[in-house]
Amino acid sequence: MKLCVIPGDGIGHEVVPVAVGVLQAVLPGLQLVFADAGWETFCRYGKALPDKTLEAARACGAVFFGAVSSPMQLVEGYRSPIVQLRRELGCHANIRPTLSLPLTVCRQGIDLIIVRENTEDLYVGDEQFDGEVAVAIKRITRSASLRVARSAFEMARHAGRQRITIIHKANILPRTDGLFRDCAREVAQDYPEIVVDEMLVDTAAMRLAQAPESFDMLLAPNLYGDILSDLVAAFGGGLGLAPSLNLGVTAAIAEPVHGSAPDIAGQGIANPLAAILSAAMLLRIWWQRPELALLVEQAVRATLDAGIATPDVISPGVSTQHLARAVIDRLKQE
Amino acid sequence: MKLCVIPGDGIGHEVVPVAVGVLQAVLPGLQLVFADAGWETFCRYGKALPDKTLEAARACGAVFFGAVSSPMQLVEGYRSPIVQLRRELGCHANIRPTLSLPLTVCRQGIDLIIVRENTEDLYVGDEQFDGEVAVAIKRITRSASLRVARSAFEMARHAGRQRITIIHKANILPRTDGLFRDCAREVAQDYPEIVVDEMLVDTAAMRLAQAPESFDMLLAPNLYGDILSDLVAAFGGGLGLAPSLNLGVTAAIAEPVHGSAPDIAGQGIANPLAAILSAAMLLRIWWQRPELALLVEQAVRATLDAGIATPDVISPGVSTQHLARAVIDRLKQE
Ligand SMILES: CC(C)[C@H](C(=O)O)[C@@H](O)C(=O)O
Ligand SMILES: CC(C)[C@H](C(=O)O)[C@@H](O)C(=O)O
Repeated sequence: MKLCVIPGDGIGHEVVPVAVGVLQAVLPGLQLVFADAGWETFCRYGKALPDKTLEAARACGAVFFGAVSSPMQLVEGYRSPIVQLRRELGCHANIRPTLSLPLTVCRQGIDLIIVRENTEDLYVGDEQFDGEVAVAIKRITRSASLRVARSAFEMARHAGRQRITIIHKANILPRTDGLFRDCAREVAQDYPEIVVDEMLVDTAAMRLAQAPESFDMLLAPNLYGDILSDLVAAFGGGLGLAPSLNLGVTAAIAEPVHGSAPDIAGQGIANPLAAILSAAMLLRIWWQRPELALLVEQAVRATLDAGIATPDVISPGVSTQHLARAVIDRLKQE
Repeated sequence: MKLCVIPGDGIGHEVVPVAVGVLQAVLPGLQLVFADAGWETFCRYGKALPDKTLEAARACGAVFFGAVSSPMQLVEGYRSPIVQLRRELGCHANIRPTLSLPLTVCRQGIDLIIVRENTEDLYVGDEQFDGEVAVAIKRITRSASLRVARSAFEMARHAGRQRITIIHKANILPRTDGLFRDCAREVAQDYPEIVVDEMLVDTAAMRLAQAPESFDMLLAPNLYGDILSDLVAAFGGGLGLAPSLNLGVTAAIAEPVHGSAPDIAGQGIANPLAAILSAAMLLRIWWQRPELALLVEQAVRATLDAGIATPDVISPGVSTQHLARAVIDRLKQE
């Protein structure tokens, strides 16, 4: 069993080793292949996602991706490595769960999953600018919409979820977002046990802010999924606790939702739980080892129950390393 | 002084007369010109925004727009009348304030304004579908970006606001969203007293959910402004309390943020406060009568302080008419 490990930039270097340590604790034979990507890599080699990294990721299938810093200005030749990696590996669904943990920073009662289309929409990178007018293409295809819908409904069926809410803005974008919605409804017919409804993205932002506990699963095009999953992460205790899995047919990328966090990088206080919980998703969904995923999640819960966490979620908080040891100790006791 | 009144669909018919009554109470000479738009209008005349309505709106300059129902499916010939009206009247800035009111449904301490670009972005309605691939154009121009930024900074200066946060996703859309951001930064140079920062739209959704009170003004492209303003409205007591003003050079449209609410239309319980507070924005910003705007806002506050409101924000709530009378009574006492 192989795992391609891409720490990336900033706190990626701090949280990824912790999550990988957790995986090694439950999968003793796991082979690691380290690879580079991100802003530092771009500055050094002129490519944010080197070919060698892509090859290693392809060869392993399972990938652990930390976080990368991306420039806010147009930089010639730079393209977001995680967006590229998602597409190159065919990871068409980005699965972002939010589950209330026993912490005062978490709003209680939330247990939802956002399934985000992961390969198209405004993320295709087709933009032009003539000095006065800039245009970008939002691209939605039948095939990608059907594919991500299929993944969402399959996951709902296997996880015993009852309801999927399709997110769109079809009142303004009847052809693109309408297509996404119609494809989801088409797939839904094969899953009569799952209730399907739909919601405009603006209404969904309001409803998620008012009553996140009223949602079960959400299925969204790429950009809406990006925005809504960050919104919900706020109620789940912040980005320090938000895991995700990018899922495809031949590959999966575990990826904490947080970024490289340059403001706290190097201080040893980054929260590794988002990375650890992403590792659990890799175990459950990609390696099909739900019993191991559960062990990891239970160790996280027991650690939090003992009042141990980093300063972003508990005061006074402990260091990344301290929290990591606490989780691994509990894992070994289980 | 003339006002073009467009009730639209659903609860538009219930709340617009109330807001217009409030305006008449403070501006006794106000002349009303009624006009049609919306789904009912489309079904009857084949046009959601008849030419006659557009002419009346143009002739009056000041417009009161209630709400319209829009179909979620592609309907040949239908285009959202409010999106058309905003563009046709050149109302380039959509101003959406959220201010905590003395109600338990409101999160306290919020006092922010979202200024949303109102004429372009994915709202240009340039979409194509060939049966497999659908594309939509996201269009951002220098001129519209500079114009809305100018309005935002002018408003910040006059209202004594300290900080403007520019919203974008320039890490993925460096040309379109980057242009929007760069134009805002260009305009900002003329306002050295205002602090300017920028935030990715996903991060903004998270920060708004965590700490809406930490924002002052936000300046956003059309679609992000749409999503974030609904998000924030949730903390301001819901859509029943969220006002807006679409502002241009030759026209302004007062418009409650809520929709036509078919679920409660006809029951006489729609909250007219969003419409009344939109009327106050028309008074303050368009007609330049801040003292009258204040009277209206004080009457609303006094009514809420007396525990009178519709069921969406207070229990037990009163009817639209009861609340309307309570506000107008207080207005007359002031
Ligand atoms: C870093 C950025 C490209 C990325 C995205 O927008 O997908 C991030 O926000 C995320 O949600 O994973
Ligand atoms: C009804 C719809 C076209 C509109 C929009 O998206 O602008 C609404 O959501 C709003 O925010 O005013």
